[in-house]
Amino acid sequence: MTVRYLRFERNGRRYEGIVTDGDVIRELHGDIMDKWGLGDPVCAVAEIDRYLPPVRPGKIVCLGLNYRDHAAEMKLQLPEEPLLFLKPSTAVIAHGDPILRPAISKRVDYEAELAIVIGRTARHVSRDDADDFILGYACANDVTARDLQSKDVQYTRAKSFDTFAPLGPWIVAGLDPSNLEIRMWRNDSLVQHSSTANLIFPVPVIVEFVTQVMTLLPGDVIITGTPSGVGPLSNGDVARVEIEGIGTLSNPVEDEIIGRSA
Amino acid sequence: MTVRYLRFERNGRRYEGIVTDGDVIRELHGDIMDKWGLGDPVCAVAEIDRYLPPVRPGKIVCLGLNYRDHAAEMKLQLPEEPLLFLKPSTAVIAHGDPILRPAISKRVDYEAELAIVIGRTARHVSRDDADDFILGYACANDVTARDLQSKDVQYTRAKSFDTFAPLGPWIVAGLDPSNLEIRMWRNDSLVQHSSTANLIFPVPVIVEFVTQVMTLLPGDVIITGTPSGVGPLSNGDVARVEIEGIGTLSNPVEDEIIGRSA
Repeated sequence: MTVRYLRFERNGRRYEGIVTDGDVIRELHGDIMDKWGLGDPVCAVAEIDRYLPPVRPGKIVCLGLNYRDHAAEMKLQLPEEPLLFLKPSTAVIAHGDPILRPAISKRVDYEAELAIVIGRTARHVSRDDADDFILGYACANDVTARDLQSKDVQYTRAKSFDTFAPLGPWIVAGLDPSNLEIRMWRNDSLVQHSSTANLIFPVPVIVEFVTQVMTLLPGDVIITGTPSGVGPLSNGDVARVEIEGIGTLSNPVEDEIIGRSA
Repeated sequence: MTVRYLRFERNGRRYEGIVTDGDVIRELHGDIMDKWGLGDPVCAVAEIDRYLPPVRPGKIVCLGLNYRDHAAEMKLQLPEEPLLFLKPSTAVIAHGDPILRPAISKRVDYEAELAIVIGRTARHVSRDDADDFILGYACANDVTARDLQSKDVQYTRAKSFDTFAPLGPWIVAGLDPSNLEIRMWRNDSLVQHSSTANLIFPVPVIVEFVTQVMTLLPGDVIITGTPSGVGPLSNGDVARVEIEGIGTLSNPVEDEIIGRSA
């Protein structure tokens, strides 16, 4: 059985909640990373006023080129090892928050990705033990200023703008991540469609690889790469990442107006 | 007048302290990022038992290729714009903590750098206003697994190992960063020697550029690039970064033994 953990606002109050089955959110008691229990029902999922990011990661570790189809699309060789980069936590937004297209980029792309949320401090973890360190999974959109990515070679600037890491709508625990359908919708068009079965480096291998390099802390996030079909987002679009067993992360797209707080 | 802010242990207790002049540390009252005052004297700087990182950054934004001499050394063209990458906060260690050389790299290099520590939330800050958002400056060592940097092209893995971001020994406020001598010592050998006057992009321009991309939060750190003379560290070495007006950040170098906590 899967369990959904989420953060949201309802009637002007912030909640951490759990959905065990059906549509009713119960309040979380305790710490989702440690000991927790179920409190009273708060509301139905449909009655949420505003979603909040389900986690505020200390770091977001990202994989480049982790679907065979995307590597072919980008005319790049299959990697021998996972290719890592980082996004800053200030890029994280929730389900429903706008993705802001910065004026200094002429091309901002969506990238649907499966996010791994870490639940326990992890260092030098073997692939066989990886599952013990994972709290659950979420949808992510690795929004990328494609023109700046090409210009800089280093991916960081292109992928680090505020709002460039939509994450949510919740974290699902108890899910097998090895064969989940993943889809990206730009408005009503299906623009990416693959399965996590096509990951070059699957979830346990990723955790082993990343924790050879750095300590992962509770709340840290790994996003696992995107399938083929990447493309641009325009002002007024809605970008939706849909992953089987998780749900849909939907974000409107707007042009940034400098001076407005994100 | 400059003020030094530091975190340390003395007689089994953790302190935040301030040195205004001479060598006596007084306890900090309040929040260094907000309102603070001076408490009682704790001890002399020489009596510190153990240094702690002066800040736990939410993110470490790094510049590649920001000294003309280093660009020449690496046979790379001068950049038109700052080149950004990120190091994770889990890489931060204090003055005196060991740099651990991971077994999967054959070449771990030092890189002496001036660190900017952010004091106020900063977004779309102009170069003229940059100083208002800076808490102070510290020494940093952008430790780099040079072989993995070449292999990956993306810098992230090479620069993200635990212990690869020595920072300290303290944060100095009230310092003009525009013309400070910067030196790297490998044991008794002077291996890097330049001045921040040789930065291609000086501190205010860096703050303007980075905050065009992302929000900087109090405690976030920007490391500003390294001068020429980069080279390898061996087991048993001591790496010392010395910056005029700040002081010396010294770290012993050890080979990592997997299974030992860093």
